[in-house]
Amino acid sequence: MSKLLIVGTVAFDAIETPFGKTDVILGGAATYIALAASQFKVDAAIVSVVGEDFPKEHLDLLASKGVDLSALEVIKGGKTFFWKGKYHNDLNSRDTLATELNVLADFIPKVSEDYKDADVLMLGNLHPSVQMSVINQMTTKPKLIVLDTMNFWMDNALPELLEVIKHIDVITINDEEARQLTGEYSLVKAAAKIQTMGPKYVVIKKGEHGALLFNDDNVFFAPALPLEEVFDPTGAGDTFAGGFVGYLTQTANVSFSNLKNAVIHGSNLASFCVERFGTERMENLEKKEVDKRLHQFTELTQFDIELQ
Amino acid sequence: MSKLLIVGTVAFDAIETPFGKTDVILGGAATYIALAASQFKVDAAIVSVVGEDFPKEHLDLLASKGVDLSALEVIKGGKTFFWKGKYHNDLNSRDTLATELNVLADFIPKVSEDYKDADVLMLGNLHPSVQMSVINQMTTKPKLIVLDTMNFWMDNALPELLEVIKHIDVITINDEEARQLTGEYSLVKAAAKIQTMGPKYVVIKKGEHGALLFNDDNVFFAPALPLEEVFDPTGAGDTFAGGFVGYLTQTANVSFSNLKNAVIHGSNLASFCVERFGTERMENLEKKEVDKRLHQFTELTQFDIELQ
Repeated sequence: MSKLLIVGTVAFDAIETPFGKTDVILGGAATYIALAASQFKVDAAIVSVVGEDFPKEHLDLLASKGVDLSALEVIKGGKTFFWKGKYHNDLNSRDTLATELNVLADFIPKVSEDYKDADVLMLGNLHPSVQMSVINQMTTKPKLIVLDTMNFWMDNALPELLEVIKHIDVITINDEEARQLTGEYSLVKAAAKIQTMGPKYVVIKKGEHGALLFNDDNVFFAPALPLEEVFDPTGAGDTFAGGFVGYLTQTANVSFSNLKNAVIHGSNLASFCVERFGTERMENLEKKEVDKRLHQFTELTQFDIELQ
Repeated sequence: MSKLLIVGTVAFDAIETPFGKTDVILGGAATYIALAASQFKVDAAIVSVVGEDFPKEHLDLLASKGVDLSALEVIKGGKTFFWKGKYHNDLNSRDTLATELNVLADFIPKVSEDYKDADVLMLGNLHPSVQMSVINQMTTKPKLIVLDTMNFWMDNALPELLEVIKHIDVITINDEEARQLTGEYSLVKAAAKIQTMGPKYVVIKKGEHGALLFNDDNVFFAPALPLEEVFDPTGAGDTFAGGFVGYLTQTANVSFSNLKNAVIHGSNLASFCVERFGTERMENLEKKEVDKRLHQFTELTQFDIELQ
């Protein structure tokens, strides 16, 4: 099997939506990415850090999905990164109520020897210097490096972000962030500008409005599955990324037409993630459910017009 | 050829967008619908009203597209309906600066004998009582009745709107209007509720975010083509509707799978409409341009995943 190396947070979240609120639960970009990627036949490993307060049951969950945790550092006496947020009524925006970096503040990622030749490298949302450090530790150039980031790093670490962006193949970013990064309102223009910064492929995530994949003059669009109710959007973007890289790692094919398929697989998995709080829906998601919904995606988007 | 009867405004517009402003130009729902529908092999007629101030060149334009204008009444001494609006910077919202009903205030539609057996009836945005009056004049039940409406009629003529909705097959409505009509935030729930009000098919238009087609448990989605620049959104919804009914009239097939194709044709034509002010882009749009962009729509949405 091909190898997928995932860098990102493994964390505690506390979430409030119009439908309810949680206690402190399992969260973090790398967690969601790994849970989604584990739907595919891949060897996946996480590089991250947690505190001594991180429950064994969470580690066991990830291990049970076949995720290699040898580079998930546990800091003695340390506390795990914690995020608390509250979503507004339309679920499209949220307030951050608390961010405690804790062990993440001094995180120095150490890639295990086994994964320095990973086929695909997924740089989850983290300080761009941490993302860069992982790229530098690879002994073999990955077939594909995918980076996810957010506006926080544009505001607080733009030079480092622009540096790491030079070294990647795919960026995943939301629509407002693409506009902020480029100063272009048109997403077509924003994607073209981002391609001059480094990545050959640009994925613009539009939440409930789907995702766009750009490469030169090629554009592909995947809708979000229309759901009766979105319960909790937390982790949807990371789940999308996990499905995207999981599929690409399994198929070991980074052509544009296969990236289209990867966008569909990512959108498909994200549609499950938002149905329950946090990671709940992803923890026991079965392949037959995933396959069934792929049929729905096909019905949703495929048509049969005779072209002239 | 099959017959398409179009009811709606034929009007004057004055438009301001972030990119410029127009003098008084040709506008109106029926105008945009007819220009789009004329891309297909159909016999189309407009039922509408204008004033004596309406220029012959506009009538000649519609006639040159093969549109039957025998039921387009010209009121001696009357003034044509006029709308003036200004779009905000994101083009997703606008202010109405002036609405002068003029001859529209007393409009009594009179369907010509030739079109009382039209195959498809397109009820463009107008007072629901006018829409109902046209349904009542049909001597043969059309294969398909499509209705477009807007929030103004929900606010000002809800009982009449609910009455006409009982008699139609397809409603086209935007996302906010679907929410207003049903009190449901989820578009899936809103579409289900609207289907209990009469129409078997619900098309929810989301502007730059595409359009959804609902029928029972079936959902189909067509994106808007990502454009470098949207210049003027005026008429995009009517152009969508015109492409939708034009294709359905030409193919004389109202199956769900053919309605999917119709949504793609509508989206395709709307992508041209927004490239210039008003009807400018639609007036000289050539079939080869339309066909070429259909290929782009196919590239944009079609993928090839092996389903299990």
